[in-house]
Amino acid sequence: MGRRYDTISLLTDYGHADEFVGVVKSVIRDLAPHVVTIDLAHDLPPFDVRAGALALARCIPYVASGLVIAIVDPGVATDRAAVAIEVAGGEGVLLGPDNGLLAPAVALAGGAGRAVALTNPTYQLPAPGPTFAGRDVFAPAAAHLANGVDLAELGVPVDPDLLRPGIVPLTRRDGGTVVGEVLWVDHFGNAQVNVDPDEINGLGERIGVTIGGARRVARRVAAFAALGPGELGLIVDSYGLLALCLDRGSAADELGLAAGAEVRFAEPGGPDEGRSGTPVAFVK
Amino acid sequence: MGRRYDTISLLTDYGHADEFVGVVKSVIRDLAPHVVTIDLAHDLPPFDVRAGALALARCIPYVASGLVIAIVDPGVATDRAAVAIEVAGGEGVLLGPDNGLLAPAVALAGGAGRAVALTNPTYQLPAPGPTFAGRDVFAPAAAHLANGVDLAELGVPVDPDLLRPGIVPLTRRDGGTVVGEVLWVDHFGNAQVNVDPDEINGLGERIGVTIGGARRVARRVAAFAALGPGELGLIVDSYGLLALCLDRGSAADELGLAAGAEVRFAEPGGPDEGRSGTPVAFVK
Amino acid sequence: MGRRYDTISLLTDYGHADEFVGVVKSVIRDLAPHVVTIDLAHDLPPFDVRAGALALARCIPYVASGLVIAIVDPGVATDRAAVAIEVAGGEGVLLGPDNGLLAPAVALAGGAGRAVALTNPTYQLPAPGPTFAGRDVFAPAAAHLANGVDLAELGVPVDPDLLRPGIVPLTRRDGGTVVGEVLWVDHFGNAQVNVDPDEINGLGERIGVTIGGARRVARRVAAFAALGPGELGLIVDSYGLLALCLDRGSAADELGLAAGAEVRFAEPGGPDEGRSGTPVAFVK
Repeated sequence: MGRRYDTISLLTDYGHADEFVGVVKSVIRDLAPHVVTIDLAHDLPPFDVRAGALALARCIPYVASGLVIAIVDPGVATDRAAVAIEVAGGEGVLLGPDNGLLAPAVALAGGAGRAVALTNPTYQLPAPGPTFAGRDVFAPAAAHLANGVDLAELGVPVDPDLLRPGIVPLTRRDGGTVVGEVLWVDHFGNAQVNVDPDEINGLGERIGVTIGGARRVARRVAAFAALGPGELGLIVDSYGLLALCLDRGSAADELGLAAGAEVRFAEPGGPDEGRSGTPVAFVK
Repeated sequence: MGRRYDTISLLTDYGHADEFVGVVKSVIRDLAPHVVTIDLAHDLPPFDVRAGALALARCIPYVASGLVIAIVDPGVATDRAAVAIEVAGGEGVLLGPDNGLLAPAVALAGGAGRAVALTNPTYQLPAPGPTFAGRDVFAPAAAHLANGVDLAELGVPVDPDLLRPGIVPLTRRDGGTVVGEVLWVDHFGNAQVNVDPDEINGLGERIGVTIGGARRVARRVAAFAALGPGELGLIVDSYGLLALCLDRGSAADELGLAAGAEVRFAEPGGPDEGRSGTPVAFVK
Repeated sequence: MGRRYDTISLLTDYGHADEFVGVVKSVIRDLAPHVVTIDLAHDLPPFDVRAGALALARCIPYVASGLVIAIVDPGVATDRAAVAIEVAGGEGVLLGPDNGLLAPAVALAGGAGRAVALTNPTYQLPAPGPTFAGRDVFAPAAAHLANGVDLAELGVPVDPDLLRPGIVPLTRRDGGTVVGEVLWVDHFGNAQVNVDPDEINGLGERIGVTIGGARRVARRVAAFAALGPGELGLIVDSYGLLALCLDRGSAADELGLAAGAEVRFAEPGGPDEGRSGTPVAFVK
């Protein structure tokens, strides 16, 4: 028997309208009653692997030691692999579809150790239909891991170098302009961009922000409440990245921003030329 | 003292906007601290007993051994009974209003054993008002059951044959057409119908689907991703029933489908005549 | 070492779309693995301190013994204090921003005992940015309290008399009219007002209700289902206050009601003059 685990953290696009998450937990409860489950997030945008990968990456520095099941899986029931990947010398294992969802989190956790495709039916539930891998594949696999079944028992080994990479958009410079992209709009309407605060330090306290052709000025602040009514702010958010924000309001609604939108940062009076696609890096 | 229980699963239409579910869990936590609660679903359509009964039935094969509290209860504070029903020789007990909500689940669990109406105030909380039976009646009753109080202590016996039945719509044949009904639209927009895959096996791989007078063709697939962009699919869902689906999109939005809508299945080029009401069966 | 705690109840405006709540629980799980967390509510209206204070006050008679983290915190990262307040001789501790959110709950729990501002970085997480106090300040403080760290270790003492009060609207009489205010619209559309049933007992079973200039008649009932289709009701809700309601429908939608709306109660045929602001009381 291998190491045992006490915690399974869950991140899915299953939503709260249906019983999907509850059934996953029920399966875990019956197979591994000692396990505590933690809901990281379940209202991720449906089918949006990138949004799920970014959310999981934001969580990973804080996730409790143990197992993580992450599911945003438009390819369920196709030949995309269902995988389990050890990280941190086996202190954690991430389970999910091999579609890039896990890759940034695995990278942040120090890179992949052993990995398997979950092909052993002994550690799955028989299913009336193939579309609920959370219930039939991931939950039982995680529960058996938690009970001490070794990773290698769950299926066939996978070369970690062949796992599907995640895609993380990079910033670029366009003359004096820093060109970034919205990674995430949170519940409050704050729009996190892929820009490190240091990248715009030369641009001063008041910064020109161009979104979809429209030019605005944002002020760098250390607290939402430092902003006046309707004033646009740029704050270092709780993950260390810049976020566009308002005081007690939704910057995303105000600016018509969604994940993926380009945002250009320049001196308020300076020029801001051209535009082009976002370069990307592959992360694993 | 009777058998003790370690798990209470919860299914309600309480939603997540308010503290209703949290207060139910707080009451359980104080009375039976050893119990683990599992949220099956709380965003069921308000007041919709049929939707709740179907969701509970979908859960029941997977629910952890122990107690289940199910609440969709438009008749709260009237003389509808609040009941607790043993199933599987006492391995499980379902608690909820006697309005048909529990009936399909009880049937799937093998039928009702002992049943009581929850009339004993010793195992209830005194209430400032009568409208929150989850907090004042069902949670304390379940907590006391979990602690080993025998079912018979909770109130007066009820003849299981007199419990309110649930209503399950049946399919029917209309010439060469199979007439079914949407049971459930899930978070992703998949529309489950009350049709067993075998019922339409004679109709081929491409099937004519009539909804509200409009005719479409759906293709039987084994994975959502097997569909082309915008192509309508018919998949055997994770409960073994047919569901109308799209790849990475909402079939229900596309087709204007909601629970209860009639769906007619026929050969794509064949005739599809008439329409009439759905026959039903009473289930307990 | 001080007293240990086994339960941390959580009430926030973090919503369910993001991983905020899950990360708070992850931090607690890693620091104090013996603790059970209970979600009271997380979909409170964003930034709405009054709504949060009322929800917490509704919960407090039922909350499990132990710790409560409450967060509706538009002033995060400003100089508003993050506080922990003992109640009931240390049986419970409430943690949250000192902005009035905790005040009604503290009052209901018997008033503040010892209180501290959470200033000791030993019991906080280092943060990449200052905006996620739930993760970086409140969760670790509560986890350390649960582990037996004494309240006094968490920071500097605060005089409970200097804590920010909460504001609770009072009813008033305007001739024969009782003037109240909507405190809360729940998930089902019931609109709780700040009116004790006794205050309108003289007005009879059928009561004139004026909202935004429009006059309606509501009937006092003991169950939602006692109402006819579309008939407006007044029920004593589960907290002992009056609520406007419909049978299987949303009174708030029907009447265009939201929290804060004025509602005037009078005899159905009687006069109803004038209007003016709501008097308030400060509560701590």
